[in-house]
Amino acid sequence: MLEAGVKLVRQQGFAGTSVDQLCREAGVTKGAFFHHFASKEALGVALADYWSSSTGAFFAAAPYHHHADPAARVLGYIDLRTELIAGPAESFSCVAGTMVQEAFVSSEPIRAACNSSILGNAAALEDDLAAAIDQSGARGVTAASLARHIQAVIQGAFVLAKAGGDAGAAAAAREHLLHLRRYFEMLLTNENTRAD
Amino acid sequence: MLEAGVKLVRQQGFAGTSVDQLCREAGVTKGAFFHHFASKEALGVALADYWSSSTGAFFAAAPYHHHADPAARVLGYIDLRTELIAGPAESFSCVAGTMVQEAFVSSEPIRAACNSSILGNAAALEDDLAAAIDQSGARGVTAASLARHIQAVIQGAFVLAKAGGDAGAAAAAREHLLHLRRYFEMLLTNENTRAD
Repeated sequence: MLEAGVKLVRQQGFAGTSVDQLCREAGVTKGAFFHHFASKEALGVALADYWSSSTGAFFAAAPYHHHADPAARVLGYIDLRTELIAGPAESFSCVAGTMVQEAFVSSEPIRAACNSSILGNAAALEDDLAAAIDQSGARGVTAASLARHIQAVIQGAFVLAKAGGDAGAAAAAREHLLHLRRYFEMLLTNENTRAD
Repeated sequence: MLEAGVKLVRQQGFAGTSVDQLCREAGVTKGAFFHHFASKEALGVALADYWSSSTGAFFAAAPYHHHADPAARVLGYIDLRTELIAGPAESFSCVAGTMVQEAFVSSEPIRAACNSSILGNAAALEDDLAAAIDQSGARGVTAASLARHIQAVIQGAFVLAKAGGDAGAAAAAREHLLHLRRYFEMLLTNENTRAD
């Protein structure tokens, strides 16, 4: 049912997805649904939590952690996120970002679970960012804020991907990850993209 | 009815807003609604177009255009967008970004209208960005892509604002506009935030 929820929320949002559709997609009865979840809202919270743990495990196991240089680890994460952007938007968009966009007023539990999901992904980057800031001497930025900024740019890239339509979705998203990479390169490495 | 639509979509999204709610909020009958709009989808398209023209007119009249320096005009736009972020997320979020997040698969007309709205805001910045790139000698970036990036960061900031909840919404969004400003400063001016 959670996999069905991921698929449907990515395609049509949370409010646009009915319990009937969820049951049909998952091949379960409505009785089975309400045996597991007290309400559609409870499914929404479980979905955000499932999304957090599945994406968290995926990124924890990714090879970018093996770089010795902390800035290379940060850029490696951004590169991985860029590679994952392919095909139509519903195949790479964020369940938590989509749900919170509509449900932040109507459901405090869903808002809080989506916030934890997005900030949990951010927090996983903080140690590498702190080490990279230390090493580069970048001023006026904190690891926590840069970590959140990565997630914000990714969320914004997904909105522009959806706006771009099927054929243009991946390109519409990827360019923002490349801007993010350039910002971080300028801040955290000795790269310089300005003319002399 | 369009003002009622702006308010309700910002609060609860497009799928979560019924025609009945729209009529109640606007103080009109359902007959009057369907006299103006053939369907809820037609209202969605009209809403994105109304959003484009009202926000477009607002930014066209804003004082940042008076700066003589093109980079100052770009940073002035970013500063204005930052100032507009105050209070709860539903008071500063984007109608087009919210609608497209849920409706990009279900309604091609709404997707296209939202895309025009977001890219229209971006296009209005291109001339200033082109002049700023010319002046700074920034390499590897185009005015069109930087203009879209401003909109992507704003959309992402709004998602994190909604996730942050009422008390934290404005702060959760503003920090991303400050990162965007820092990126543009590094790229387009002689500011340098790295230690020597």
